Amino acid sequence: MTDTEYPPISEQLTDVDEAREEGRRKMDWAAQHMPIMERLREEFAADRPFEGERIGMAMHVEAKTAILVETLADGGAEVVVTGCNPLSTHDDVSAALDAHENIISYARRGVDDEEYYAAIEAVIAHEPTITVDDGMDLVAAIHDDYPELIDGIIGGAEETTTGVHRLRAMDADGALEYPVFAVNDTPMKRLFDNVHGTGESSLASIAMTTNLSWAGKNVVVAGYGYCGKGVAQKASGQNANVIVTEVEPRRALEAHMEGYDVMPMDEAAEIGDVFLTTTGNRDVIVEEHFEKMNDGVLLANAGHFDIEIDLEALDGLASDRYEARDGVEAYELADGRRLNVIAEGRLVNLAAPVSLGHPVEVMDQSFGVQAVCVRELLENGESYDAGVHDVPDELDREIAEIKLEAEGVDFDSLTDAQRDYMESWDHGT
Amino acid sequence: MTDTEYPPISEQLTDVDEAREEGRRKMDWAAQHMPIMERLREEFAADRPFEGERIGMAMHVEAKTAILVETLADGGAEVVVTGCNPLSTHDDVSAALDAHENIISYARRGVDDEEYYAAIEAVIAHEPTITVDDGMDLVAAIHDDYPELIDGIIGGAEETTTGVHRLRAMDADGALEYPVFAVNDTPMKRLFDNVHGTGESSLASIAMTTNLSWAGKNVVVAGYGYCGKGVAQKASGQNANVIVTEVEPRRALEAHMEGYDVMPMDEAAEIGDVFLTTTGNRDVIVEEHFEKMNDGVLLANAGHFDIEIDLEALDGLASDRYEARDGVEAYELADGRRLNVIAEGRLVNLAAPVSLGHPVEVMDQSFGVQAVCVRELLENGESYDAGVHDVPDELDREIAEIKLEAEGVDFDSLTDAQRDYMESWDHGT
Amino acid sequence: MTDTEYPPISEQLTDVDEAREEGRRKMDWAAQHMPIMERLREEFAADRPFEGERIGMAMHVEAKTAILVETLADGGAEVVVTGCNPLSTHDDVSAALDAHENIISYARRGVDDEEYYAAIEAVIAHEPTITVDDGMDLVAAIHDDYPELIDGIIGGAEETTTGVHRLRAMDADGALEYPVFAVNDTPMKRLFDNVHGTGESSLASIAMTTNLSWAGKNVVVAGYGYCGKGVAQKASGQNANVIVTEVEPRRALEAHMEGYDVMPMDEAAEIGDVFLTTTGNRDVIVEEHFEKMNDGVLLANAGHFDIEIDLEALDGLASDRYEARDGVEAYELADGRRLNVIAEGRLVNLAAPVSLGHPVEVMDQSFGVQAVCVRELLENGESYDAGVHDVPDELDREIAEIKLEAEGVDFDSLTDAQRDYMESWDHGT
Amino acid sequence: MTDTEYPPISEQLTDVDEAREEGRRKMDWAAQHMPIMERLREEFAADRPFEGERIGMAMHVEAKTAILVETLADGGAEVVVTGCNPLSTHDDVSAALDAHENIISYARRGVDDEEYYAAIEAVIAHEPTITVDDGMDLVAAIHDDYPELIDGIIGGAEETTTGVHRLRAMDADGALEYPVFAVNDTPMKRLFDNVHGTGESSLASIAMTTNLSWAGKNVVVAGYGYCGKGVAQKASGQNANVIVTEVEPRRALEAHMEGYDVMPMDEAAEIGDVFLTTTGNRDVIVEEHFEKMNDGVLLANAGHFDIEIDLEALDGLASDRYEARDGVEAYELADGRRLNVIAEGRLVNLAAPVSLGHPVEVMDQSFGVQAVCVRELLENGESYDAGVHDVPDELDREIAEIKLEAEGVDFDSLTDAQRDYMESWDHGT
Repeated sequence: MTDTEYPPISEQLTDVDEAREEGRRKMDWAAQHMPIMERLREEFAADRPFEGERIGMAMHVEAKTAILVETLADGGAEVVVTGCNPLSTHDDVSAALDAHENIISYARRGVDDEEYYAAIEAVIAHEPTITVDDGMDLVAAIHDDYPELIDGIIGGAEETTTGVHRLRAMDADGALEYPVFAVNDTPMKRLFDNVHGTGESSLASIAMTTNLSWAGKNVVVAGYGYCGKGVAQKASGQNANVIVTEVEPRRALEAHMEGYDVMPMDEAAEIGDVFLTTTGNRDVIVEEHFEKMNDGVLLANAGHFDIEIDLEALDGLASDRYEARDGVEAYELADGRRLNVIAEGRLVNLAAPVSLGHPVEVMDQSFGVQAVCVRELLENGESYDAGVHDVPDELDREIAEIKLEAEGVDFDSLTDAQRDYMESWDHGT
Repeated sequence: MTDTEYPPISEQLTDVDEAREEGRRKMDWAAQHMPIMERLREEFAADRPFEGERIGMAMHVEAKTAILVETLADGGAEVVVTGCNPLSTHDDVSAALDAHENIISYARRGVDDEEYYAAIEAVIAHEPTITVDDGMDLVAAIHDDYPELIDGIIGGAEETTTGVHRLRAMDADGALEYPVFAVNDTPMKRLFDNVHGTGESSLASIAMTTNLSWAGKNVVVAGYGYCGKGVAQKASGQNANVIVTEVEPRRALEAHMEGYDVMPMDEAAEIGDVFLTTTGNRDVIVEEHFEKMNDGVLLANAGHFDIEIDLEALDGLASDRYEARDGVEAYELADGRRLNVIAEGRLVNLAAPVSLGHPVEVMDQSFGVQAVCVRELLENGESYDAGVHDVPDELDREIAEIKLEAEGVDFDSLTDAQRDYMESWDHGT
Repeated sequence: MTDTEYPPISEQLTDVDEAREEGRRKMDWAAQHMPIMERLREEFAADRPFEGERIGMAMHVEAKTAILVETLADGGAEVVVTGCNPLSTHDDVSAALDAHENIISYARRGVDDEEYYAAIEAVIAHEPTITVDDGMDLVAAIHDDYPELIDGIIGGAEETTTGVHRLRAMDADGALEYPVFAVNDTPMKRLFDNVHGTGESSLASIAMTTNLSWAGKNVVVAGYGYCGKGVAQKASGQNANVIVTEVEPRRALEAHMEGYDVMPMDEAAEIGDVFLTTTGNRDVIVEEHFEKMNDGVLLANAGHFDIEIDLEALDGLASDRYEARDGVEAYELADGRRLNVIAEGRLVNLAAPVSLGHPVEVMDQSFGVQAVCVRELLENGESYDAGVHDVPDELDREIAEIKLEAEGVDFDSLTDAQRDYMESWDHGT
Repeated sequence: MTDTEYPPISEQLTDVDEAREEGRRKMDWAAQHMPIMERLREEFAADRPFEGERIGMAMHVEAKTAILVETLADGGAEVVVTGCNPLSTHDDVSAALDAHENIISYARRGVDDEEYYAAIEAVIAHEPTITVDDGMDLVAAIHDDYPELIDGIIGGAEETTTGVHRLRAMDADGALEYPVFAVNDTPMKRLFDNVHGTGESSLASIAMTTNLSWAGKNVVVAGYGYCGKGVAQKASGQNANVIVTEVEPRRALEAHMEGYDVMPMDEAAEIGDVFLTTTGNRDVIVEEHFEKMNDGVLLANAGHFDIEIDLEALDGLASDRYEARDGVEAYELADGRRLNVIAEGRLVNLAAPVSLGHPVEVMDQSFGVQAVCVRELLENGESYDAGVHDVPDELDREIAEIKLEAEGVDFDSLTDAQRDYMESWDHGT
């Protein structure tokens, strides 16, 4: 234990009891709709696989994540947690977690930079044997400042695209000194999180921010990757007329064959009513496009960073700029046209005022993978070299099985004869 | 003018200017997305068809309705308006309207019964020549208490199902003494409002209240009328597995042939994840159904009244009851199952805390019909007898044409030869 | 009995036994997929409601219709049947019917005009007490030439749009002297036959005639009535990009709000890959449209008559014309573009070489209504005046109930309290 | 040249000219709807990339394949072709090909085993420098019997799953002595062929074989790979209620989250109306399932081999068996239930009597890849080692680009700044 004396959340709040109660209410709602975590918690509570381990976590401390934290704690671990973003913590949830006998939470909303890093150091001071990150803060701090702890660390897990990207870069440089699972890249996450999670929550956030309808609207979806497919499918399912823009010809063809209109943004700009970027790239909607847009269009981003819509250029074109509604900024051009930017072009299903982030069920799947990755580290950690590891296929599959069982969905299994056939299927050719 | 001295909203607020500014901002947003009203306002501003008339209105005074009020005022009328529900008024919008030189607004949120009726009397005191109602309050008050004004009234228009129903009853009794258009019953309203408006806004309200996803959910839609079809279609478009319950065999068959599962509520109760009532009838989900439901289900109503889900019975079954989230009340049964009721079983797209009511575009169509009905009364009022009248087909069609033009959608017209053929189409048989 | 001596089909064929066997095989297939008729046949066989009656029928004598004929015969009637079109009879089915002890069939394929009418007279010679028509041939012949029989006729039923239209004209002239049910106009027929039957079978016929795919195609649907909605919905469900043309603004708006592109045929002509007319009107696709079409387009009609595509004009434009495939005629224009007309512009789900007509299940519903209409004439015939009658709502509903039961689909029924509420639903307003 | 004297098709037919004309007519239709091949043919005719080469082909010689053959010939190659299946040749198309100055066709329908292999030897006798296979017959015969030719062979391309599988086995044994492209495995083929091609053509074949409708049917899709997804999506798009069976939990979950019912075949057997297998595995529907099925169900297979439905077991259960319709065999069980097997359980979109194989557009994409693979062998053949090679990504992309251009679909391209960003996208993280 170092001499860091950063206090847990419970020592920072004035009315801890009330906060804990409110936090618990939020967590109860999430838990009620996270059947995967519920099953794992039962399993872990019985098996206590994490007994004697210390798990350090830097995550968005809100209700859904809190269920992961508790699940690990109920499996016997001592869990020490802090935030991974100064603004994403719910203090009440943090306090509710901190009330658990096996959990210490340092997360608090609105901390300054110094406090933010002090909290991370406070987590590290507990000398975790496992790290769970959302953005790689713990891995980075340990490698940079506490390399002496690495020997005691079995491994880690990383939730996000960004974190995984940075870890892979570290790994490529030979600098990553313990194994970390790239939870972000599993089929279970990509398919459900991106297609269903992003698709549904982006559209609902826009509708509830604007009081507008989708039926009959020309909805321009920029990018036809997993997120773009989800947004296109869901918008079409609300009777929008979907227009896709793409730079990769096979994706463009895929969208075309699905029945969507495909065209360059330059053309789409003239007819779109709503524009949703999902490319992960920059400068997708730029000055030349703004110039062609109709009065009253909506502009929103469902990609990771707020660089897809060039707001600087838009501001340059605008003669006036004002808040048209909560979460909607109107840029009024010289000719009177108003282009309405939602949630400042940041990830719309997180950043709009009404947004609640990803649906609970989506996080249930994602955190389920996290939880079994931690279990895997304890059971088979020695078999993983230092470096980034894909989540083993059978763990990803295990989560799918738990989810199906929880939903009461039964499915078939291969007979021996079928398994033989698949393994040597040139019978009869 | 009677001696009523109920003051307009501007005299009731402390910071009128700020309220007006905020109300204007809300109205600007609505206006920006109400192309039908925009066209009509231009037409009326040029033609001034309502010059010299006094239009009395009792409506929900919020941004969308305010655009109708202004449109009539810009057409030359003196418009006097109050609320039709003590809780639905936005004071800022009311104040913004009251700032218009041709408008007086008495609407204020949170008035008591006495004030509510005083405001209605204040409207009547202006001796309207046209009435526009949302629930028949003005028509009723005039017939009951100010019959002497009836001679001076050209006619009225009524927005809601309920109001139309009551007017028809009055008409059947021979008690309705001037002509009133049943705006509620037009194809333009029923089709778009119910299918698209209710469908989209109900689902978005539920998603944004619960943070839950639709994909893979068993969504039970009770009733397969226009609202039920809309909800079923939109839920299916979010990848829910839709289950329909019905009492009319042809509607049940229609749902079945559309590909939905159809079953009695008794069976649906056992497998549903979300239940949405749209029947317009009472006791659709009752005690025997609650007893079979799974832990964590959601219950919501998209029908007019809060009588479809028998909450009294549910309360009787519950051992505990608490607010699980804003807008969600959990009823916990003795065996621990939690049934979550959204928005107290009231119309979910209006009553949930995040709800914004019907989408702007839907009200644009509905208010467009209102506006041309008022114009019709002035142009041809003498041709309508006292009583309830369907909106003339050509007015309904006119609104469709305006909307299509505003959206830049062009369509064909019949040639003379085609018109002849359709009129006597037994050629060649 | 007149002295007509037109022989039944069994006396006209050389190998009657083989024909009967083949006809029976076709009928068995149809019967297997006509659960409504199966239930009615069981009911009628037990109750013998038609005992002592003579039913004269002029219908397309093929497998599906044959099940209706047999069902009536099994209910105790003597049924005498002939064709309603010289080319639509399947001789084998006709022979199989004629083998039934209560049925005489005069229908034969390829008869000339004289034989055609002789067969109708042969039916009439049996002095039917009920007539069942598909195109009004029996009603017309009886009224024109055998008015003395009318007194003995209880009533009739008519299957088609055209027949009903002509009957209504007769009725309007006061010339229709017995009651006839307009089976064509029931919700059960319009909704399922037009939306699902026409939609599915038109698209499958085109695909199997051309070996082409729908995915990504621009499919222009002319007309957005029931047939057009069915074609649009089913084409969209095969991942086509649907474009709708309309002349009625509210239907155009409905299509637009459903998410389809709406435009005039003049514009659609330039971008369509496949054109499908469903308007019931003439000259929907004409010279000016042909001139703008791309090489290789497909033109087909799903409306009743072959007047929607102006083939005469197309022929005038063409420099060459040849059979590109069975069922596809290519019109080659001077500039080399080839416009491909399917099934000569006649009803594509009937006239294409591979076509099988409406799906069996659709005819099951339609013939179910026919059968209970005949029963109704016997049970309550005296309560119907001479003239055209809508099918009573409860008969239409009965067929829906039988279908649902046959499919194992259960549904709810109103409680007394609910029924009371619906009847006086202003409770609490 | 060996001494084989097997004659070309033109010397085998009696009325060659008529056959050629009919074959040409079929090819013209295909060509008209194969824009990719049209563009490649123009390019090849101008560049003559195959000048001096001899291309040996063993393919299904019908209209669509013939366009590939001609395209290669028009690019300068001498093409020698025979069938890859004794029953799939269209003699008229074969004769039309044989009329081309650069093409010799030995393919004839209905040849016996000896003739079949003699024809393959006749192709090999021309000492091809490139081989194009559909099932690996040429590669196998050359390696087994003419190893002396291998030195002169630049490489090959293989169309099918089966052929690729066998080639990979050969490659793994070190026995494949020249490079062969696995055309089957490209995204362009898998996605469009399987999802859209198999999906659409399987359903249309079943509908046109049975005269039945999809609306409201319980359609059981076994397997949720690309083919299964296609069938499920298209059946749902025809308003069927889709039920998916799977053995892989993530695919099962994917189907569940898409909104389909997922259950074991054992349960699905009790409620299905139509069963479609797409697994590629054996014994998917077996005795225990047949025993639970309803009277009148349809059984069909859209997977590669006729082993998915256990017809032997079904025959064992059946008390009678007869042809219920062309292409439908009814198995009548002791209790009278009839289970209807379509196209003998063989690939339904190829083997049903009405079937036309894959849609033209799908083969256009697949053959486009074939054609550019051949071009690649000539341009860069030396850079490919002996063995199986994936089609280079840029060739697959090239075909997508050609298709989009041919369809008039324009799309975006990356700016330099965007390309830089994607290549080092950790900016700002």
